[in-house]
Amino acid sequence: MDKSSMNLKWAVCLSVSVIVNLICLVLIICSKHTEKLSWTREAATTAENVASISCSGHGRAYLDGLVTENGRPICECNACFTGPDCSVFIPNCVVDADSGNPMFLEPFWKQNAGSSAIMVAGWHRMGYEFEDGSLISKQLETAIHKLHGTVGNANTSNKYILFGAGSTQLLNAAVYALSHTAYSSSSLSPTKVVASSPYYPVYKSQTELLDSKKYKFSGDTSSLKNKSSDNNFIEFVTCPNNPDGHLNKAVLQGKFARHVYDLAYYWPHYTPIPAPMDEDLMLFTLSKLTGHAGSRFGWAIVKDKAVYERMVEYIDLNTYGVPRETQLRALKLLNVVLQGDKRVMFRFAHTTMKSRWEKLTEILSTSKRFSIEQLPLQHCTFSKQVRAPSPEEDKDCYNVLRAANIIGRKGAAFGVENRYVRLSVVNS
Amino acid sequence: MDKSSMNLKWAVCLSVSVIVNLICLVLIICSKHTEKLSWTREAATTAENVASISCSGHGRAYLDGLVTENGRPICECNACFTGPDCSVFIPNCVVDADSGNPMFLEPFWKQNAGSSAIMVAGWHRMGYEFEDGSLISKQLETAIHKLHGTVGNANTSNKYILFGAGSTQLLNAAVYALSHTAYSSSSLSPTKVVASSPYYPVYKSQTELLDSKKYKFSGDTSSLKNKSSDNNFIEFVTCPNNPDGHLNKAVLQGKFARHVYDLAYYWPHYTPIPAPMDEDLMLFTLSKLTGHAGSRFGWAIVKDKAVYERMVEYIDLNTYGVPRETQLRALKLLNVVLQGDKRVMFRFAHTTMKSRWEKLTEILSTSKRFSIEQLPLQHCTFSKQVRAPSPEEDKDCYNVLRAANIIGRKGAAFGVENRYVRLSVVNS
Repeated sequence: MDKSSMNLKWAVCLSVSVIVNLICLVLIICSKHTEKLSWTREAATTAENVASISCSGHGRAYLDGLVTENGRPICECNACFTGPDCSVFIPNCVVDADSGNPMFLEPFWKQNAGSSAIMVAGWHRMGYEFEDGSLISKQLETAIHKLHGTVGNANTSNKYILFGAGSTQLLNAAVYALSHTAYSSSSLSPTKVVASSPYYPVYKSQTELLDSKKYKFSGDTSSLKNKSSDNNFIEFVTCPNNPDGHLNKAVLQGKFARHVYDLAYYWPHYTPIPAPMDEDLMLFTLSKLTGHAGSRFGWAIVKDKAVYERMVEYIDLNTYGVPRETQLRALKLLNVVLQGDKRVMFRFAHTTMKSRWEKLTEILSTSKRFSIEQLPLQHCTFSKQVRAPSPEEDKDCYNVLRAANIIGRKGAAFGVENRYVRLSVVNS
Repeated sequence: MDKSSMNLKWAVCLSVSVIVNLICLVLIICSKHTEKLSWTREAATTAENVASISCSGHGRAYLDGLVTENGRPICECNACFTGPDCSVFIPNCVVDADSGNPMFLEPFWKQNAGSSAIMVAGWHRMGYEFEDGSLISKQLETAIHKLHGTVGNANTSNKYILFGAGSTQLLNAAVYALSHTAYSSSSLSPTKVVASSPYYPVYKSQTELLDSKKYKFSGDTSSLKNKSSDNNFIEFVTCPNNPDGHLNKAVLQGKFARHVYDLAYYWPHYTPIPAPMDEDLMLFTLSKLTGHAGSRFGWAIVKDKAVYERMVEYIDLNTYGVPRETQLRALKLLNVVLQGDKRVMFRFAHTTMKSRWEKLTEILSTSKRFSIEQLPLQHCTFSKQVRAPSPEEDKDCYNVLRAANIIGRKGAAFGVENRYVRLSVVNS
């Protein structure tokens, strides 16, 4: 080999090696640039490790779940599945269609893992109040205004917003505020609290819990109808109604009518939205919007300042506001709902609900014993009630289904007969 | 140059380059191995970016804080500081010693950033209940048992534990439960709720809020003393007392005595712990233990099953439990408290409190107008009250201090005269 071809050979080898060097250096510099995590690394790694545990698609492991002797988190399985990785199907298992756990949205949040996760620092918002002295994140309040504007289900302009532990806490806050303001406070007898049957059972149990001198649960709205002289009442209006899906309107009217609109299900995945609601007191909850029932986050939209202030007073003295972790998470989740074309989550939710509803309809259409309550299609494509029809009418629909390993919720819980039963289709 | 020396030169260059290549490859492989974060990256990076914003040591930026027009989070400054990076001192500013914001522990959590952060996945615990149907994390319950065992401030064996929104929610849950169980339920008159002055003002305002038929706030315990025949009462016992730091004991005794022990401050950073408390109903809160007031997390330790069940009923109907984010965070924080020699946080907290107390004592010792209430040293090294002594007695200590730009909390708020004022020393 002559000297120049030898040199060429060396030069080629060296050039290749140097090029590889340069590529490697660029890779290292780039990775150093993006991989600059320090104090968040431990929490991030732990979360990814737990999330990577396989539960066969029938369960999930959580950061705060029980662990095996080796410290490995244990899968928490969906109903009817068991085993360390939830792979074992339980034959003849009982289907729980009682609980309204909105787990049907869990796959959506797994698909949007990156944008929906939050990292909470150990020093995040330790104080009692926000900087402005309130108990409410201004960013989250803004996101809620934007959400209703986008969805078009409630008019929030010139109204006050406050937060509570789900709509649960806000129901009683509203009853407290309305029974302490304006016309009722001069009355000697307690304000009557009513709802139209079938109604959400918590209206009754919560109102009765504290046995207040100021208000009293008085059952169905019909007990007050045609008693226009008796204006000392508060009516819960649930729209669409839980359990029967009807788009209820207020029954009791008049100059002194006070209504609490429970709009938990007034979202496009459950019902068509004919127009934005524009009522004086409207309640919403994250549970039924994004499926985060465990976060216990709800909000009230209130027109009257005095009523709003009374509700704030109730929340202050009852729990001193909603945890800052929860407000941070709700903000993150709403930002995901509002990103892109602002319809992704609603499309996912509606498609899932529609497919479940179609399956249930199909199964029940083969039955001569059970039927689904019919709702006008233009108003409501989603309902959750099964009704015993003629020719054979069961006095106790709940127990008939229970014998077939299906747990529903008895009609009596909603103030109607037990020939009705609510079957929940929002679970996993 | 001869051929062999030329070859040697090439060989050396190539060898160096290949070695660099190998090193780079090892670095890249190692970094790929440790840097395997995927869906948590976005949240982790955002959190670190916000945490890295400089607020001159007089404030902090939060993930959910307000942002500038460029989307940069704005610093939230401590009292008396202002400017975009909290570097501007406000002359003659008002010192707010009213709020009991326990921000003095914030530096501890910044020092322990890695171990105290949590990553909450978008799908974390969406359901209403835990796997066992309860609203309570078993892991967190276990950590609380361990905590009291370690600190030695409460005997939790053979007792029930439930969670609430701070001790705030649990105060009323306890009053509800005790007024609905056993001896009181047969009584026609409402159960009297009392506390020894000076007492925490929420006892009064919260008990009066709902105007229940079952219970009624009746002021100072002295109103019931020597009325042994009247056993229909609930006494709040605050130990150490807020505001005066005394290690209170129950005043009202007898066969039917029912007491709610508010032990919010019964931790080694505030008071010596002579012995574990072993009362029937004890309340604790994360706010005063770790400083996370904004998390609204408290727990009750209850001996009697019926009372426990009534309290659970109250929490269920009032808010349906404590948010899962909050329970996850509380678990993480308690695990930090319990790690290592289990004394790191308490040492930090005690040192900070001691130094503040010494400064306050020093300042007030030069005054002939104000004095600090003296507590026996072996019982209490930490107290928060300033008392107007002879020779010159101010009728309104609050307003005298207010004129000097110091906001305290009036004695009247605690059921005593305004010649007393509470100055909080736990803030930032």
